[in-house]
Order: sequence, then C-alpha cells, then structure tokens
Amino acid sequence: MTTSPIPLVTRGDAASEEEWQAVLAAAMPDETILPFRTLTAEQRGRADIAIVANPDPADVAALPNLAWVQSLWAGVERLVGELGAGAPPIVRLIDLELSRVMAEAVLAWTYYLHRGMPDYARQQRGRIWQALPYRPPSQVQVGLLGLGALGATAAERLIRAGFAVAGWSRSGQPVAGIEAFTGADGLSRLLARSDIVVCLLPLTAETRGLLDAARLAAMKSGAALINFARGPIVVKTDLIAALNSGHLAHAVLDVFDIEPLPPDAPEWDHPKVTVLPHISAPTDRRSAAAIVAGNVRRYRRNGELPDTVDRMSGY
Amino acid sequence: MTTSPIPLVTRGDAASEEEWQAVLAAAMPDETILPFRTLTAEQRGRADIAIVANPDPADVAALPNLAWVQSLWAGVERLVGELGAGAPPIVRLIDLELSRVMAEAVLAWTYYLHRGMPDYARQQRGRIWQALPYRPPSQVQVGLLGLGALGATAAERLIRAGFAVAGWSRSGQPVAGIEAFTGADGLSRLLARSDIVVCLLPLTAETRGLLDAARLAAMKSGAALINFARGPIVVKTDLIAALNSGHLAHAVLDVFDIEPLPPDAPEWDHPKVTVLPHISAPTDRRSAAAIVAGNVRRYRRNGELPDTVDRMSGY
Repeated sequence: MTTSPIPLVTRGDAASEEEWQAVLAAAMPDETILPFRTLTAEQRGRADIAIVANPDPADVAALPNLAWVQSLWAGVERLVGELGAGAPPIVRLIDLELSRVMAEAVLAWTYYLHRGMPDYARQQRGRIWQALPYRPPSQVQVGLLGLGALGATAAERLIRAGFAVAGWSRSGQPVAGIEAFTGADGLSRLLARSDIVVCLLPLTAETRGLLDAARLAAMKSGAALINFARGPIVVKTDLIAALNSGHLAHAVLDVFDIEPLPPDAPEWDHPKVTVLPHISAPTDRRSAAAIVAGNVRRYRRNGELPDTVDRMSGY
Repeated sequence: MTTSPIPLVTRGDAASEEEWQAVLAAAMPDETILPFRTLTAEQRGRADIAIVANPDPADVAALPNLAWVQSLWAGVERLVGELGAGAPPIVRLIDLELSRVMAEAVLAWTYYLHRGMPDYARQQRGRIWQALPYRPPSQVQVGLLGLGALGATAAERLIRAGFAVAGWSRSGQPVAGIEAFTGADGLSRLLARSDIVVCLLPLTAETRGLLDAARLAAMKSGAALINFARGPIVVKTDLIAALNSGHLAHAVLDVFDIEPLPPDAPEWDHPKVTVLPHISAPTDRRSAAAIVAGNVRRYRRNGELPDTVDRMSGY
C-alpha cells in the first residue's frame, strides 16, 4: 500500500507556496507533497496529513479523513479559531532554531534599549553630542511575558548577558534561574519592577488585550516594551497614550493588529516607537521542513502523533 | 613618616575633577588626594605618584620626583606624546569592567548591524513594510582589529553569540578560539573576509591612518565598520567615499578626529553613519578608583610598580 499524497494548503502567495513545496519535498523524498488545488477528489479523500500555512478553512474542511494538520507556523491562534471544534488535531511548529533566533532578537533589541540606541539616533538627528547614563545589565530588570520554549530560551540568553531577568506565565511553571510569576497579581508585580518588558505570549482569549491602559499604568515609569508576540495582546491606543504621556519611554513593535501595518497607522512616525515588519524570528524554511519531515516519519512508522494544540488554552 | 599627598592632575572640567577627587578619596581613605592647583611647592616636590586625566603636560613636569603616573584612562597615546621621553613611567587604566562593557558594546552594535536595525529605521521613515534577509550569526564573519584585553573579551562574547570571529593584532599572539592574523598581508586577508570589521586598536604611530582608501577597498563589498577605538585610525574622507560609492554599507562611529564631533561634520547626517558620542565603554569611576587604589596600595606596601606603558609601541 502506498501512502497518500500530503496536501499543502496555503492561501495567497504562489511563489511562497512553490518554495514551501520544494523544501518540504527535499526534506521528505519518500512523500508526495501536492498543492491543495492540484489534488483529485480521490486524493482529497485519502489524505491523512495536511501541511498548512494560513489555509482557507474551506480547503481544510474539504479533506475529510485527516488524522492531523501540521502548521508551518508557531502561532496557530487564527488556525484554531478558523478551523473550529470539529477539525482534526493541529500540530504547531516547534523549531529550536526559531527559539534561538527569537532569543537572539530579544537580546539584540534589549541591548537596543539598554544601550540607548533610539536616544542616540534622536541625538544624531539633532547633532547633539551627549553621553547618556550607563547602567550595567545587572541593574536592568527585564520582565518576560511568556515562559514557553521561546521565553525560556530568551531568559537563558538574557541571564548569560548579565541582565536581571524575571518572567510571567499562565502556568507559573518554574524556569531555571529566574523568578517566575503567575496570575493577575503576579503580572502586576512583574510589570511594576521591570525596566524592559518583553512580550512572547501566545494570542489566546485570555491574552487578547492583556496589556491595556491599567496594565500599562502598572509598568514602571520610564520603562520600555518589546512586543515580539502578537499585536492584539497590546491595546494599541492605550500603548500610544502611555508613550505620549511620558509614562513609557519606548516601544519596539514587531507585530500589529493588521499586518502589513497600514500606511496611515500612527506607529510609523511615532518618535517613541520602533516599527519592525514581523522579523524578530523569521521562519527558516529548511529547518521547519526538517522538523515537519520528522513528525511525518514518526507518524508513518508507528502512528505516533506529535504534540497537538490544546484547543482550550489555544496553544 | 607620612606618605605624600597624591596630586590629581586634570585639564578642563572642574565638576569632573571634583567627582574624581571624591571617588578616589573614598577608595583610598589612607591617602590624601589633592587637585594639582591646590598643592604647595613643598607638596609638589614630595609627590611620588600622580593621578592624571588629560593633564596639562606642564603640570606633570612641575612634579619632579614622581616614581610613576597613573592615568585614569585606558587610551594613553596623547599622554605619552605630550609628556615626552623624560617623563616618569605611565600606568594606564586596565579595568576588567571596562573590558566587559566594551565587549558588550561590540556585541550590541554587531547585533545592530546583523539584525538590520539601521535598515529597518530607514524603512520605518519611508513607511516601508519589508522583511530583509536573515543570516544566522554562524554565517556572519566578524573581524576584530586589536586582540588585547578589549579585543580578546569581545571575541569571547561574539563567539558565545555564535558569530564567526577572526582577529588581527600587531603581535600575532594567539587568542583562544579564533583565527588570529598579523602583518600587512594578514590585515588584507582579514578585511577581505569580514562582513563586520570592529576596530579596537590603540592609536599609535603604526595605527594612525591604518584604515585608508586602500585598506577600505580591501574590505568585502557591502561590509560594515564599527570604530570603538580612536578616530584617527580611520581616514575619515576615505571612509565617507567608501560609503558614498556603495562599497561599504554602514559605519558605526563612536570616536572621531575631533571630539565632540563639530556641528558641521559630515558624519552627523550621513545616512550610512551612526554617530555615537564616545559611549561604547564609559569609565565607571568607582571601578576605576578601586583599581587605582589597588595599584597605590601595592606600591606603598613594597614599592611594586604596576605594568607601565611601553613608550616604543605606545601602549
């Protein structure tokens, strides 16, 4: 018996789909990877695995016999919502290289704030020669929101760089070397003591709008925010108000409610906002394809499903 | 017998002198630290140690019985030149905290270039949403010029962060974990392979003007330069020409021929230059004072002189 072709279900960019097909095929030479739209009705009926990147939910629903769906992305909140309760188990991409690149981004943009790069850029535009006070990293409190694979790896990098690191997570599960807070009260305490808050939370019903006016007001005066997670976790108008009032010093935003960030969005020319085009941890397609290939191989060998997304928590 | 007061010889800023006097006095409660201008003729004649920060050479010459001169700075090229051949031995500040802060700056501004921060800032001004290609640090060659205390510590930090590091030094002395080049030919080879060149050399007769048109032309096309050492090591007009021609992508300059950088200097509004006001490794006065106090204590105890500057090499 031959295995069924694996549908690749994407929406939008044809060049991107073609590239995914090529790297996935290279990583799984024994499998046949076919774009969804090229499948026959018989192939649709037989498919037991689908690989998806921002799929049209109707396409996934047109594959009635899926045992599981492999996402090519780490963030699956949209997929979980769109596929609904009756959908097959979803496997999100857990890529150690992605964690490494994200931790690197956290360290790089923490240094950006710690070493005053936005301030020195402002001074350069004004031709101002002025050294700003320097504090060693041991005196800089970094608060990580989210202590999953990404948060734990980022914590380790920040600790090695000498920063004073603490974190907050839903589960309150301990992470080596850092003080871990949980609950609403724990969040307030972490926000109150952090000079730099780094958001790495998944977007769920619980985290949507988490950083609102009250939570931003709970942050230390003069603190800065880095959001590398999902735009809707931060209430954008509240953040801009907190920057405008002078309560917060700066925000580094890699994620937004609408992406690409629309040309008329106020973030673009806000002097206290650094806008990044969702680049903190770009997917390494070859690395992702290798991980997906491993999942597929284990499933073919003994029917073992990779860890799937918990629909209740949403990640 | 009581010990002689230690003259503090500075030029310029009175507030800075007062602060130095306070931290040095706190670090050496058994010693009397006096600003040069407050000394009696008898005290000048008895002084065996002077502590100096950018001193007027005539003031140092007015202290005839110095056994050694302690500089509060790591860079002593100006002091060596101004005091001349007949001056007492000069001790420069070797501060491990300074090496740590400098290594941190090297890593922070290496990330600044590696993670495309100047490019994303340019895109933000143009409201352009565009991810730039990402290369893992293992594929980014960093070339360190200077492998003394600062260079070796910076190399270690860069290696731990995963960058591909090589270095060049006058002595060609090996440094753990990196390929070390020496000589004119070695310099050309290092420049040709480096994506980011970081200058940490002392300013000496040999290094003045070292990075001229020919050496900048030997750099990889699209490479970037970080100068955290001394302005005159780089020929400024040649650097600007190399940036304007598109051969070099960016320069991060913390040091200049004249400091503060004059308001009409072309670096200020050059789109490919990041101007920093000599802040890569700010002196930590308390840390510096503790080191100076240790030197003074050992000398008082058994006449042991700290390592002094080699006047031939200039550092």
